[in-house]
Amino acid sequence: MKRIGKESVIYTFSPKHKPVEKVVPGEYVLFETEDAFGGQVKGEETPPDKLDWSRVDGATGPVYIEGAEPGDTLVVDVLDIRLQERGAIAAIPGYGGLSHLSFSPKAKVVRVDHSFVYFNDLKIAVRPMIGTIGVAPEGDEIPTGYPGRHGGNMDVSELGIGTRLYLPVFVKGALLALGDLHAVQADGELCVSAVESPGEVLVRFDLMRGRRASWPILETEESFQVIAAGRSLEEAMREAAEEAVRALMRARKTTFEEAYMLGSLLVDLRINQVVDPLLGARAVVPKGIVCIEDFLTGH
Amino acid sequence: MKRIGKESVIYTFSPKHKPVEKVVPGEYVLFETEDAFGGQVKGEETPPDKLDWSRVDGATGPVYIEGAEPGDTLVVDVLDIRLQERGAIAAIPGYGGLSHLSFSPKAKVVRVDHSFVYFNDLKIAVRPMIGTIGVAPEGDEIPTGYPGRHGGNMDVSELGIGTRLYLPVFVKGALLALGDLHAVQADGELCVSAVESPGEVLVRFDLMRGRRASWPILETEESFQVIAAGRSLEEAMREAAEEAVRALMRARKTTFEEAYMLGSLLVDLRINQVVDPLLGARAVVPKGIVCIEDFLTGH
Repeated sequence: MKRIGKESVIYTFSPKHKPVEKVVPGEYVLFETEDAFGGQVKGEETPPDKLDWSRVDGATGPVYIEGAEPGDTLVVDVLDIRLQERGAIAAIPGYGGLSHLSFSPKAKVVRVDHSFVYFNDLKIAVRPMIGTIGVAPEGDEIPTGYPGRHGGNMDVSELGIGTRLYLPVFVKGALLALGDLHAVQADGELCVSAVESPGEVLVRFDLMRGRRASWPILETEESFQVIAAGRSLEEAMREAAEEAVRALMRARKTTFEEAYMLGSLLVDLRINQVVDPLLGARAVVPKGIVCIEDFLTGH
Repeated sequence: MKRIGKESVIYTFSPKHKPVEKVVPGEYVLFETEDAFGGQVKGEETPPDKLDWSRVDGATGPVYIEGAEPGDTLVVDVLDIRLQERGAIAAIPGYGGLSHLSFSPKAKVVRVDHSFVYFNDLKIAVRPMIGTIGVAPEGDEIPTGYPGRHGGNMDVSELGIGTRLYLPVFVKGALLALGDLHAVQADGELCVSAVESPGEVLVRFDLMRGRRASWPILETEESFQVIAAGRSLEEAMREAAEEAVRALMRARKTTFEEAYMLGSLLVDLRINQVVDPLLGARAVVPKGIVCIEDFLTGH
């Protein structure tokens, strides 16, 4: 098993980054990650509007996956997520889904154990998830705080233990990095942060050669989910929904019009987050009527 | 039990409509409804881009609820939804979440029974729901195709049998009407229609005096949901999320900042529909940390 230490941190996804490790498909890889604040939020006394933003949203990596070529799909099995026993949350004026309202900066550190996040007198069930996971894009670097076709800061609440992520590969070796673990986050990530915890993620990679999707695809026990981003929720929704409809056309060997109708009946459009520089939505297609191949196209 | 026939149809929610029936809180009321197309889609041969739009989106009513006063909350228990054994679906160029793409008009009539919608070779589980239910607004009439603070065409997939809807009352008697039943609809209602079926809805009304919410609140087995609408999904989301955060402040007797953080961890922001003249989103707050009173304010 290879271990990627949290000192190997990047703040952009870029084809120019030198990989910190080379791994082969099938081997176990453990990523150690700092929290999304770069460990800067120590408690209520931290002013969250005065963070050093150059140390925020780091991702551990990048890792070079042997054999990954542009046009392939990188398959990432999320086998485990282990969190440290603390998490930080911040409300920062000018940020979040209610950034139009006036409020004060506020930081909070909460205890996290295997079952719960302890928020004042509330016990909230822990649902560990990966906020940021992505590969290098083809061209210009992309800050790790952004979501996109390369993955990145997708903040999908369902991207947890036991799920599988399909990422399009744009450069030789894929150059995967991940970080921004959340102990719990609702759809939307309303206040701009979730319970941000340092921790470790165990993954295993696989490759599908010569075909890929236009956006990351998440596979859960019950669904395939197209994860898209855009300048508005409508734009993100349109991107995700079109990919889902195209997959339904391939799966059912049917017309656009019939697949569009099926989308109305079967495909849940969901909000990922409303707080990052690009907003995120996903199209959730139930398993049983599609398979992963329906989302992929070859060159 | 009072029965409201489908010949009592309105196409606007308006304080000026004469009620077709007066009912008292506690009595059973059965509404008979036409489908959202006004029965015009007969089969594949119907050109869905040539419908008579003046007969679309009708709602049965309005009913005057004895004792309902402006400032009250009208409580609607949805006890049963019975559908006729058919449903119509239409894809109409220029409409729906993918209206920017080019496609052909297409109508379809499908068989519906107690368990399934039969869509070609697919059997899709039936989940009956009410697309349109609302009260008269204070001022100008609102077309029944619009969602708003008065309810209306909310198209919330979870508004089904066994749920309870809390509507703010704006005029004496409330003047409730409902229609637009769906045999099944995913979040988003992507193609602009769901499986549109004629049918019957059995409800029972109650009143909460002197206090109301700013938007309709849906109560399901597991959650309270603020149902909002806006010119964009972001606007609808902001309205729903702010109401949810205000309810959390009251429920937890805490500050805006702490409630905003809790919103990030606990409140799922969901898409209702992306296809009506105003777009719809909801904020889903789990039960157990709030009660309905937390959403209501008095005069």
